[in-house]
This record gives sequence, structure tokens and C-alpha cells, in this order.
Amino acid sequence: MNRTERSELRRLPERGSHDPKVIHEVLDAAFLAHVGFSASAQPFVIPMIYGRDGDTLYLHGSTASRALLVLTGGAPACVSVTLIDGLVLARSAFHHSLNYRSVVAFGTARAIAEAARKTRAMRVISEHLIAGRWRDVRGPSRAELAATTVLEFTIEEVSAKIRRGPPIEDEADYASTVWAGVVPLVLQPQTPVSEPRLAAGIEVPTYLPRGLRFK
Amino acid sequence: MNRTERSELRRLPERGSHDPKVIHEVLDAAFLAHVGFSASAQPFVIPMIYGRDGDTLYLHGSTASRALLVLTGGAPACVSVTLIDGLVLARSAFHHSLNYRSVVAFGTARAIAEAARKTRAMRVISEHLIAGRWRDVRGPSRAELAATTVLEFTIEEVSAKIRRGPPIEDEADYASTVWAGVVPLVLQPQTPVSEPRLAAGIEVPTYLPRGLRFK
Repeated sequence: MNRTERSELRRLPERGSHDPKVIHEVLDAAFLAHVGFSASAQPFVIPMIYGRDGDTLYLHGSTASRALLVLTGGAPACVSVTLIDGLVLARSAFHHSLNYRSVVAFGTARAIAEAARKTRAMRVISEHLIAGRWRDVRGPSRAELAATTVLEFTIEEVSAKIRRGPPIEDEADYASTVWAGVVPLVLQPQTPVSEPRLAAGIEVPTYLPRGLRFK
Repeated sequence: MNRTERSELRRLPERGSHDPKVIHEVLDAAFLAHVGFSASAQPFVIPMIYGRDGDTLYLHGSTASRALLVLTGGAPACVSVTLIDGLVLARSAFHHSLNYRSVVAFGTARAIAEAARKTRAMRVISEHLIAGRWRDVRGPSRAELAATTVLEFTIEEVSAKIRRGPPIEDEADYASTVWAGVVPLVLQPQTPVSEPRLAAGIEVPTYLPRGLRFK
């Protein structure tokens, strides 16, 4: 993996990492990326679902999407993934913070043309979101494949940043009588809601709880 | 508010909105933005906390941050805010989706120089995250203000997109025997964890539950 100025950890490098294991763990715990690119000198940031296979991220969307049109043109892109883990409440306004895990990846995207590779990439995205779902559902038809752009984003450079733990205060502030600590935040799955036309007797699949990765 | 090509809703316009009320509701329900800008033709997307006042977003970070340096130079920026509301599981792979609320805002940022305005903007961010916290904590010192860059991002153009409800299937797929529906997702606050040096008898403040906006 390259290491140039764009992925250099300038701010609070003790929170940063270039370790592939750390980076993969963050990417595997999330499923929504914010994808940045420029068109006519205007930056765009578009939320997109992704799946990971090694150092490749698969992104997909409609062939009508402006974001995908620009990205498939080979424009340099930045894929940013953030998990929110908690609010850090300090005794001073200044030392308030957020517990989080984030990855910022640089690279370029390419559209996948071949139908079999496209289907495989869609499977990677699907299994990344809900492991076990793909084999249950009707696979994509030829028309559906044609209506979908699937991008292969090869990570060229990447860094992770993680903040954990309690607030760090100025020594004098520890004498304060205001409460300080962390409010953990978790993206929590709620009870599944069946689609209104679902036939009676069809159970919620067992892969749902263990397939969900949002921790 | 301007309306040009960059904020045009091309894809699924029925999910989109330019209504300020809808846009403000999404911005007020979230607190983390992904901020996009370009430096030397390389797009960057950086997660940042924000607060809202009218059509102004306040962002802040260290004066050492590369992102803030570029942004204070007046570079065009894109601020993207996304709330994840649920996984939409269809009977076909193709119709899987996400329930979400998102805002994509275009504009430019300016650094706030004057100390009183800077403090006020920091208060807006703090109250946006945890209403009621600001009056409890030690305010920023002169040195802390000097070490903080606060940006005022004026929204020039903006759109929202919202997807709600069950999966929409191809008619033939409703006969499928696979479970379909929505798994709602909520960013849920957990029990607060006191900072290790907190003196005995200091209670968790009552503004914590009602101040949290993550719905």
C-alpha cells in the first residue's frame, strides 16, 4: 500500500493507524460509505452502501446516478467510513469529543462490465450487509444487472483513526463538580417489520441477528 | 436558496426534497457530517461534528487540521449528512435497499476570527449535540479558542433524500416464500459511563436523555 501526503496522519497520530487489520475491521463493521469526488471543480459527497473483498471495495447504484457516471470515468475518489461509538463529555467545553472509528481511503473506481463478475460483486455487497441473505432471494435478472452500475474501488492509500475511552481533562478541571464521562452509542437493530403482503407463516430468518454487523 | 444542476434531484426525485423544513429536520436529527473538498485535484472526505443555525452550519476542529486549512481558504465544499433508519430486505436481490434520511449541501466555509462569535458558534455546536451541556461546563479559555478553528459554512444549495417504508417488489416476486420486510436501525444511547476520576455523588445530568437527538 502506498503512503504519501494524502494519507499521512498529521493530527493526533496516536489515534491513527495504517495497519491493514485495523482498517479491515473498521470497514467490516460498517456498511455505509461517504464517497467523495469532483465534477467541474465542485466536490460531491454521496452516501453509498459497500462491500469489501481484500483491498477492494464494491459500490453500486443505478446507471442513472450522476455520482456513478463521474466515478466510472476514472476520477480520483475518496471513500470515508465512520462508526460513531459515543459522546465524550468532559468537564470543559474544549475537551468534549467523540468516540469513533473511521477509515479514509483514496483510490479510483472502475465499472465492472462482465455480468458474472458484476453478480459476484453484488453478492459481496449483499453478504457484507446481511450474511446469509443472498442464497435466499431471487438473484438479479439480465435486465436488473443492466440497470445496475457496480464499481470496483481499489484502495491505493488508506488510514484509520480511532478514539476510545474517557475524556482527557486539564488537570485543574478534575476538581470540577460537573459530571463527566462517555455516553456509548450503538446502531441497534430493532424488531423486524414484515412486508405487508408477506404470507402468513413465513418466519424472520435466523441469519438476521447474527448477520448484522453494526457494532 | 439557489437551485442549479449540482443540487438537482435526478435519481428517484420522488424521494427528494428541497423543502427547508425537511432539510432542517434531517440536519437537526444528526450531528456528524462528512465534509468533502479538493486539494491538488485529490478529493478528501473528512467526518466532522457540526451545529446548525438557520442555513449556517458550524464546523470545528484543530488549527493543525489539513481539512480546516483547505476549507478556510474558501475552497468549494460539500457537506453530506446521513441518518441510517433501516435495512430493507426484498424478495429479490435487486430490490434490497436502505431506509435513510440524507442531506447534501453545497457552499463555502469561512473561518470565524472574532473570539465572541467563535465562542457563540462553539456553543451552537455543543447545544446541537447535547442541549443543556454548555452552561454546566467550563467555557473555552483564550488559549483554547486560539487552538480551535471554527468554520461557518453557509449553505448555498441543498437537497434532501428520504426513503421510508417496506420493500417495493416486482409483482411476480410477491409469491416468493422468502421473508421480506424492514429491520429498523436506531443509534441508541447506552448507559453513561462515568469518567474514572469522577468524585462520588455526582449524578448523571438530567439533560442527557432528552438532549440526545439520535432518532
